[in-house]
Amino acid sequence: MTQIGIYGSAGRMGQAIARAIEEAGASVAGGVDAGGDPSALAKTADVLVDFSVPSALVGNLGAAVAAGKPIVIGATGLGPDDHQTIDDAARHVAVLQTGNTSLGVTLLAALVRQAAERLGADWDIELVEMHHRHKVDAPSGTALLLGQAAAAGRGVDLASVSDSGRDGITGKREPGHIGFAALRGGSVAGDHMVIFAGEGERIELGHRAESREIFARGAVKAALWLADKPAGRYRMEDVLGL
Amino acid sequence: MTQIGIYGSAGRMGQAIARAIEEAGASVAGGVDAGGDPSALAKTADVLVDFSVPSALVGNLGAAVAAGKPIVIGATGLGPDDHQTIDDAARHVAVLQTGNTSLGVTLLAALVRQAAERLGADWDIELVEMHHRHKVDAPSGTALLLGQAAAAGRGVDLASVSDSGRDGITGKREPGHIGFAALRGGSVAGDHMVIFAGEGERIELGHRAESREIFARGAVKAALWLADKPAGRYRMEDVLGL
Amino acid sequence: MTQIGIYGSAGRMGQAIARAIEEAGASVAGGVDAGGDPSALAKTADVLVDFSVPSALVGNLGAAVAAGKPIVIGATGLGPDDHQTIDDAARHVAVLQTGNTSLGVTLLAALVRQAAERLGADWDIELVEMHHRHKVDAPSGTALLLGQAAAAGRGVDLASVSDSGRDGITGKREPGHIGFAALRGGSVAGDHMVIFAGEGERIELGHRAESREIFARGAVKAALWLADKPAGRYRMEDVLGL
Amino acid sequence: MTQIGIYGSAGRMGQAIARAIEEAGASVAGGVDAGGDPSALAKTADVLVDFSVPSALVGNLGAAVAAGKPIVIGATGLGPDDHQTIDDAARHVAVLQTGNTSLGVTLLAALVRQAAERLGADWDIELVEMHHRHKVDAPSGTALLLGQAAAAGRGVDLASVSDSGRDGITGKREPGHIGFAALRGGSVAGDHMVIFAGEGERIELGHRAESREIFARGAVKAALWLADKPAGRYRMEDVLGL
Repeated sequence: MTQIGIYGSAGRMGQAIARAIEEAGASVAGGVDAGGDPSALAKTADVLVDFSVPSALVGNLGAAVAAGKPIVIGATGLGPDDHQTIDDAARHVAVLQTGNTSLGVTLLAALVRQAAERLGADWDIELVEMHHRHKVDAPSGTALLLGQAAAAGRGVDLASVSDSGRDGITGKREPGHIGFAALRGGSVAGDHMVIFAGEGERIELGHRAESREIFARGAVKAALWLADKPAGRYRMEDVLGL
Repeated sequence: MTQIGIYGSAGRMGQAIARAIEEAGASVAGGVDAGGDPSALAKTADVLVDFSVPSALVGNLGAAVAAGKPIVIGATGLGPDDHQTIDDAARHVAVLQTGNTSLGVTLLAALVRQAAERLGADWDIELVEMHHRHKVDAPSGTALLLGQAAAAGRGVDLASVSDSGRDGITGKREPGHIGFAALRGGSVAGDHMVIFAGEGERIELGHRAESREIFARGAVKAALWLADKPAGRYRMEDVLGL
Repeated sequence: MTQIGIYGSAGRMGQAIARAIEEAGASVAGGVDAGGDPSALAKTADVLVDFSVPSALVGNLGAAVAAGKPIVIGATGLGPDDHQTIDDAARHVAVLQTGNTSLGVTLLAALVRQAAERLGADWDIELVEMHHRHKVDAPSGTALLLGQAAAAGRGVDLASVSDSGRDGITGKREPGHIGFAALRGGSVAGDHMVIFAGEGERIELGHRAESREIFARGAVKAALWLADKPAGRYRMEDVLGL
Repeated sequence: MTQIGIYGSAGRMGQAIARAIEEAGASVAGGVDAGGDPSALAKTADVLVDFSVPSALVGNLGAAVAAGKPIVIGATGLGPDDHQTIDDAARHVAVLQTGNTSLGVTLLAALVRQAAERLGADWDIELVEMHHRHKVDAPSGTALLLGQAAAAGRGVDLASVSDSGRDGITGKREPGHIGFAALRGGSVAGDHMVIFAGEGERIELGHRAESREIFARGAVKAALWLADKPAGRYRMEDVLGL
């Protein structure tokens, strides 16, 4: 039975991961939080999952490398330095870093990229997402991830074509732009839809999360997949074979 | 067979109304455009439909009053003076003025008002609409009409609770606010959805227009309904018996 | 603080109700299950909620009447005799019986009834619902409840116009019929949509349940509302003031 | 300017193709209907489009081969013999045969196939479609095409896993099955949605046709693409580079 160690085990995500590990028939090797010592856990676990704060990243990665254990990094708010640290660690152990551990969103991003690549610029791309009333920013990180997939499919830089928060006298839609709209309300865990609107027809590619547990489940699935992989930097797409 | 006269007959809407009149088994009494003389048409028609420009409104209403004929006003961009002129005319003939002649949208607005009235303020209200790439403003007039219906149901003024163009660090959603989001792309004739998002559940009330002809059909249905009504000011809701 | 007693407290719904009572700031007076004695609980509680089996209904209602306490009945599978027993009890205490305790669904049914009443028979009515993969029947009870609301709005009997399970060579759609379609998959708690499809436009009235807890919350809201009501038979619509 | 010849030019589809040819900046070489002589048109056209009846297929293909001209075949209701005839002709000229000429549907089918391939059998697949009230069969041909794409992605035969017209006591959903549901009403040109429902999340891949003209546009795009291709049998997927 695979032993999975959790960095950031006391947070809401850490607790959900513990439940998802048991649901998946694996075993929790233990948990450590920011301020604790990551080394002992790295030695006993077969694979590690890090949903801790960015400031704990250097220590957690160091412990994984020292113990020679693969590690999944789902912590958000990483900067360029963090990514450099991850690249360095990936020369020694398998590291999978991702901003979204949902398998459904990962697959959707791949489909969006492809649709954007195949459909000409006469198909307008719009993204709309809905989240609970407590969310403080817009668009959501997942909407941006999907927007980047669309921009990549078209070979353009998202920042230069992004239209967010349309309001007032906007003029006609700019060809090639990618629009974002954000809905907020109730307890919605996260709905996303990417619309490709052509002349007389629309393609709609969407994802609905019923609860936040899918992110924990995806992280565990990624950890089990990563457990026997050689050193290198991996992405969620690799777990799905995309 | 009811004879319907069209003010603004050369415009895209005027032409669509001529087709809708024949489709409905009525008859086109004739058409006049801004600059033409509205009097002769008012005399021969049983009922009038005005989709002309606001500057023609005084003349068209005067002709309707002089001939004692009911009139449907669908022209947009009316100001306070125009509404005063309409009120004056409505003391002499039946006048139905509306910003949206779709029966579906009219019914939807009534349902939205009621839902807003019955559901407590712990249900967040969001409106999302999609229109073709040529539309130059956001939110759409119909979205605002639906937002006003929601605000009226709650007994609040829309302007004081409206959240449009959400983008960036917005903070948590304000209780009682009504959010608007606008999607643009392709050739979409007009989709609107009002979402009531509560704890653990959502009610979604929407309308999809397949083409702009529904507005012409609704105007004709309103004209046929208005043809035998006494003097007074009417609304689309009256046509549906709401 | 209102004391709420639960009949059928050990079932999944009974447990969810206990959580919803605390969430609502009320207090659990106690719980009894089929086979237990309902009398003592009826005496100490301010209001009762019954999600027990139909065979326990006579005893539970008898205890409520003896103690003079209002009671919400959410148990399903009731027959004509059960309804007679409820009517008898309602002459002595307030009784609210319902097949669906969601406030959202209750409101939606009222809106559907109204839309069906206002829109002519040239608007086709279709219902589509989705539930999790474990559901064994189709259409769902809630879809039938919504279909009955639509039929009532039109003044027809649902059984005589119901089209369920469309498949193969069906011929053109019969005017005035009401269609049902059932989707099954994953862990969907329950989505319902009623579509009114006219010439060139559609009205879509839908409800999405994120989890089954909304039914417990609605039952508690109904109990708190019923606590001070005089004898009589009530419905969920009354809680919403519909 | 490419000259496109139309077999089946008097039918509704043939007329829409003539309009789409001009819209695309190409030129109509002429039209022939069943009973007419296809040879002269094959000589003057650069490429041919056949939306005629199956009985005219042998003659139309013979004319295309004799004149050495590529041909797009969109006629429906073809049998095994017809496909043999097409294969024979494709040894001499470029032949593109398809049951759906919409570029959007073609792309959607490719995305559905891929999603079905990547997502495990613990994701349930459901298809729902809506068409106008005059449609006489269910599910739609396009729904079946999408269902076949899903079945192909999973490496199974659609006929052995298809669940259509769910109604009554169905029992739990069979793992691996693909469900179909059909909605009918109003004037809907054709909406399709494929739902992948997993534990706690859903992926929804859909297409909305605003009017039937998209099929004519897709056929013309296919013809322009096929005009300079060598002999062989092609599919709509090839036009999109899929």
